[in-house]
Amino acid sequence: MNNATRFFSRAAGTMQESAIRKMGALGARGADIISFAPGFPAPDVFAWAEFRDIAQSVLDGSDATVLQYGPTRGYRPLVEALPEILAGRGIRATPEQVIVTTGSQQALDLCARVFVDPGDVVLVELPTYTGAITAFRNTQARLVGVRQDRDGIDLEDLDRTLLAERAAGRRIAFLYVVPNFQNPTGLLVSLEKRVRLLQWASTRDVLIVEDDPYGALHFTDAASASDTRPIKVDDTEGRVVYLSSFSKTVAPGFRVAWIAAAEPLVAKIEVAKQAADLCTGGLDQRIVYDVWKRGVLAARVPMLREYYQAKRRVMEAALEREMNGLVTWPEPRGGFFLWAFFGDAIDTDAMLEKAVGHGVVYVAGSAFFVDGRRSGFARLSFSAPSHQRIEEGIRRLAVAVREHTAATTSAPAPG
Amino acid sequence: MNNATRFFSRAAGTMQESAIRKMGALGARGADIISFAPGFPAPDVFAWAEFRDIAQSVLDGSDATVLQYGPTRGYRPLVEALPEILAGRGIRATPEQVIVTTGSQQALDLCARVFVDPGDVVLVELPTYTGAITAFRNTQARLVGVRQDRDGIDLEDLDRTLLAERAAGRRIAFLYVVPNFQNPTGLLVSLEKRVRLLQWASTRDVLIVEDDPYGALHFTDAASASDTRPIKVDDTEGRVVYLSSFSKTVAPGFRVAWIAAAEPLVAKIEVAKQAADLCTGGLDQRIVYDVWKRGVLAARVPMLREYYQAKRRVMEAALEREMNGLVTWPEPRGGFFLWAFFGDAIDTDAMLEKAVGHGVVYVAGSAFFVDGRRSGFARLSFSAPSHQRIEEGIRRLAVAVREHTAATTSAPAPG
Repeated sequence: MNNATRFFSRAAGTMQESAIRKMGALGARGADIISFAPGFPAPDVFAWAEFRDIAQSVLDGSDATVLQYGPTRGYRPLVEALPEILAGRGIRATPEQVIVTTGSQQALDLCARVFVDPGDVVLVELPTYTGAITAFRNTQARLVGVRQDRDGIDLEDLDRTLLAERAAGRRIAFLYVVPNFQNPTGLLVSLEKRVRLLQWASTRDVLIVEDDPYGALHFTDAASASDTRPIKVDDTEGRVVYLSSFSKTVAPGFRVAWIAAAEPLVAKIEVAKQAADLCTGGLDQRIVYDVWKRGVLAARVPMLREYYQAKRRVMEAALEREMNGLVTWPEPRGGFFLWAFFGDAIDTDAMLEKAVGHGVVYVAGSAFFVDGRRSGFARLSFSAPSHQRIEEGIRRLAVAVREHTAATTSAPAPG
Repeated sequence: MNNATRFFSRAAGTMQESAIRKMGALGARGADIISFAPGFPAPDVFAWAEFRDIAQSVLDGSDATVLQYGPTRGYRPLVEALPEILAGRGIRATPEQVIVTTGSQQALDLCARVFVDPGDVVLVELPTYTGAITAFRNTQARLVGVRQDRDGIDLEDLDRTLLAERAAGRRIAFLYVVPNFQNPTGLLVSLEKRVRLLQWASTRDVLIVEDDPYGALHFTDAASASDTRPIKVDDTEGRVVYLSSFSKTVAPGFRVAWIAAAEPLVAKIEVAKQAADLCTGGLDQRIVYDVWKRGVLAARVPMLREYYQAKRRVMEAALEREMNGLVTWPEPRGGFFLWAFFGDAIDTDAMLEKAVGHGVVYVAGSAFFVDGRRSGFARLSFSAPSHQRIEEGIRRLAVAVREHTAATTSAPAPG
């Protein structure tokens, strides 16, 4: 077919491939490429035996509804379990205030569709999660970034940005924040700032979409559970749409996540989901539910914290050893990511080719900046590779950084 | 929260709950309601033992990628198997021309997002599938219906409608058709008409979205496999986007379906899917793939044809016995649905309350007409209930029809 683009919608014209997925594909191709690109949980700590056992009993044929079309809202026992899971994080919610989604990516997509019209502003942290960027851009949102300090989003810049956008006559759809171990920076928003953020939202009448995939995975050497208290906990006005997921603690292949929000918002999100995929997979939901119900999840989370913390330590030690003085980063106090800064003289997009040449891959910072900037930042995921692969990968990266620096500084100055 | 609607997008304002899902919920509530509403496959013919066996081996932990985030395009062996499955229907496609979707509902949604801008026209059969209506409406499509004859869409009305919409300055996004055992009418488009339809699309440069969930399930007493030849088979220009699914032949709970289309269209759909849910469930895709690979699917389809054909016969016999002269329908030559017509004097929306009172539920025809009409039509699904429940349900429906007719005709004429 010639000129297939004549069939595309304007929305399709603006859709962009995720840089992370592109890098992921690159990592999958090369046999000996060590990938720090995708935020994959480590499959060696999945509860394989329990999954197998649960799948056996769920598929014994005694419950015919397992593989039937299910309720759009979610498998009922799971919907009823979510308030209990949320209560463990301090959030009060009824079953009417929750909905299961096909991964958190769908939750982001549904938020975009229910809250955003073309040209509406979505306020985001600078940098922010690429999956959110692509979901919001697909409804033609205008993404406007707000700078972050060491303790998260800068409230003064936030207010200034909001007022400027409103003064320009634009509708603010919502503010998207990842307060716990943000993707890509790993930053943790301080408790004091969370309270002020919610007050600000109330004063300015802004909806908050709070994305919390990593909250359960704080590192005990640097943070405690109380540091991860969701903004949603103090939400008395129903202005926080809270997203979380089983992908990082159970397994992403099940595609089971959820939203907690005010009842009329969840009701509308349900209608949007109905048209998006009718329902989330029945077997997946039952396995996840049983993993929770049997206490497997509760028993494993402390182990997962130690497990990922140990990997973070290995990566930090390797960076110090291999690239002392060449790189800085805020200490990840939980989650999967280390936000490396190689200095203003480095362009991590330009450096990527060299890195791949040496058998290591990361996501260049540009993927996370909605203002289009290139920079000396890169997101390094320490979650999936083994200790030995992390060390080897950082060694390779150090070679790439040194070569790139030498090539850049020895090049004649332009003009 | 007061006035939550202030947060909604204009798109959200137009989103509507699916009438089928509403009826489905009704059917699920009442303990003794016999439901002819949802198009559910029968779980007693799911391959439970095989699913269990496959799940065991897939979850043995030897393949760590099973539960990891997977490629947006789909589980690679499944993507490579789809051309072979399509070849069995006469369609030539490469792996680059297919993509796995999270059920066909997602395929409809992705088509809407990639091809439709607000105000664009989507041409549909009158009546048509409600899930398609909701998906297309969510991108603010203007749905325009084309009448159907006994052998499917009326080509003269189609051309007249297209020209009128174009003359009014509107962009035609695509024509949506379900040529095999259409939902809700059960109609089969004649082979001769399929050829002419494709020629027409070429002449008028219209994209066709061909939805084929039921094609494999023809009834051998009324149709043959050659009658179900997809329009896509003869598509030399890449103007047919072909949708199909494993939901009716394997199980809907796995949420695995697919699209076959020209490479640039599939590439754009992949980008849209990336933002919609990243990837379809890994375990689900592997189970479906293994069901196909082991030959379970091929071995079962002939049985499924006989099984659903027998149910259709039971429903037709019950209708003749219980409601002779009160109802007519086109003979379903495959699929799950019987499109009952109770005469112009009956409004099946108004009659529904009476039916529920007698313990039976259907989907009123109004759900399928994009022109908003009420009518004497109802969609009766014979796929899920047992023979005995079908007979009992039709008995109940007959009582409801008679009572409703009596109440309607004995009422004084207005004015």
